[in-house]
Amino acid sequence: MKFQKLVLGSAATVLAMCAGQAYAQFQKPEDAIKYRQSVYTVMANSFGKIGGVVKGEAPFNKDEVAKNAAIVSMMSTLPWQAFGPGTEGGKAQHAVWLDNAKFKAASDKMQLTVADLNKAAQSGDLESIKKAFGAAGATCKGCHDDFKKK
Amino acid sequence: MKFQKLVLGSAATVLAMCAGQAYAQFQKPEDAIKYRQSVYTVMANSFGKIGGVVKGEAPFNKDEVAKNAAIVSMMSTLPWQAFGPGTEGGKAQHAVWLDNAKFKAASDKMQLTVADLNKAAQSGDLESIKKAFGAAGATCKGCHDDFKKK
Repeated sequence: MKFQKLVLGSAATVLAMCAGQAYAQFQKPEDAIKYRQSVYTVMANSFGKIGGVVKGEAPFNKDEVAKNAAIVSMMSTLPWQAFGPGTEGGKAQHAVWLDNAKFKAASDKMQLTVADLNKAAQSGDLESIKKAFGAAGATCKGCHDDFKKK
Repeated sequence: MKFQKLVLGSAATVLAMCAGQAYAQFQKPEDAIKYRQSVYTVMANSFGKIGGVVKGEAPFNKDEVAKNAAIVSMMSTLPWQAFGPGTEGGKAQHAVWLDNAKFKAASDKMQLTVADLNKAAQSGDLESIKKAFGAAGATCKGCHDDFKKK
């Protein structure tokens, strides 16, 4: 009985450790939610500024676009660590956890298109930027349709 | 009288334009507050991870520290655009706007120490990282003491 308790206790500890590991850096699930939402806010701001240039609403300043694309690219690598088990909530649909492989694939796709946008932005060629911006925007929308609450 | 009205009207328009320019990218003051808080959240997360290494609570992974320092460095350049006139609120003390020169000086100082931290992190020398981390942390604290609500 004592042994059984010990084994069960250890199993629970290991389970807690594994579940915790995915968001070990976040003390509470709310911290993970706040972090990922913050990343998206920073990313959306810079992406939106590039969008203004692409749509002709803002003048094309190569350095500004290059900086904003670098921000978007860096941000695109960050939110995923904050979608670990037990961090359900916020604006995320349950599909993130129920079909995590699909979510992972969508996130990988987004990062690739955003890396392309960054490459185009660093080159300073507006036509390439416009094309890459459209492709990146489509991956944002695709993921939001499936995984973000309306 | 008609002329006077016109002049006053134009002056008001110009004033509104100038005031608006500082946070032209933000449609509402709340958007500016949300943006700057998001930047600080992302920055604090990466700074905290480096802190874990500096305090010996986490293993020293050069690449991880270099990435986190690059994030902190990039984030350090972003929040200031979101402290424009009319964006008072959130966790910011009124001193940000009442003594804007002092706030600007504190923000410049922080960016310099964070750039030093990034340089140390890219070099991969833990002793330099520890030293630069302490200096950067002190500028965070200094600014928070004067400009952030308790």
